[in-house]
Amino acid sequence: MNVEFINPFLSATISVIKTMCFTDVKPGKPFLKKDQASCGDVSGIVGITGPPNGSMSLTFSKDSIVQIVANMFGESFQEVNDDIKDAVGELSNMISGTARNELGNKGYAFKTSIPTVVSGPGHEIRHMCKAPTIAIPFSTTAGAFVVEISFEG
Amino acid sequence: MNVEFINPFLSATISVIKTMCFTDVKPGKPFLKKDQASCGDVSGIVGITGPPNGSMSLTFSKDSIVQIVANMFGESFQEVNDDIKDAVGELSNMISGTARNELGNKGYAFKTSIPTVVSGPGHEIRHMCKAPTIAIPFSTTAGAFVVEISFEG
Repeated sequence: MNVEFINPFLSATISVIKTMCFTDVKPGKPFLKKDQASCGDVSGIVGITGPPNGSMSLTFSKDSIVQIVANMFGESFQEVNDDIKDAVGELSNMISGTARNELGNKGYAFKTSIPTVVSGPGHEIRHMCKAPTIAIPFSTTAGAFVVEISFEG
Repeated sequence: MNVEFINPFLSATISVIKTMCFTDVKPGKPFLKKDQASCGDVSGIVGITGPPNGSMSLTFSKDSIVQIVANMFGESFQEVNDDIKDAVGELSNMISGTARNELGNKGYAFKTSIPTVVSGPGHEIRHMCKAPTIAIPFSTTAGAFVVEISFEG
């Protein structure tokens, strides 16, 4: 995968979560996944078409997303309800759109699909691409989450 | 959503599952979802970009996908292992690609992302689109599964 694709997703995540959710986000070091699977309780998935085609996911634990969306709305949540799922869809849309625009400025013409949100304790996400998936870990005071991107070729 | 989009996904599903998995598939009547959520044990998700942008999912119960992939490979499976997840990714790719080609013949220029596969007992999928999602239920001797498509506008 072209390493130029990583930073736009990293910086889009920091800026969207900070601006929309009033939550400071610290990125960890992006790494190539050996095991393709990633587990969480709520995920947002966005398809990307180019060429190259790809996909992006945003995967949260229940504890992290409940706190992040509480910061966003200024009210507290006990469980992963519809408001939280909608928020994950919206965050996925904004992060992928912001990254797409930055990649557009670098000359890469990507399009992004409407997001799909998956919920369910401990579900597993895998991007079905022969090339390795890149994981970008993030930490917040509310807990950790991960952004994954995968592109063919 | 343009109702012309439904039939290409319906016929692609029948033809791909029949050809690849040697499994007869009976489509039920497609319906507009009121509740956006859909539950299953393994799902394949493909992002679609146009305009209009959209998404497709293919959601199986454990019992149905274990039998369908057993028919495909000619060997039996007890659980949702990596072979089954890979097969769901491949089936999602082939169904969305076949539907995309048929829509191309009708003058709609869609692109499809690489698939993402979700696994986890009873996970929930929702397409984050303001327009209603269309569900196409299918039955096989192995059990039921559902294809959902969602397009903006």
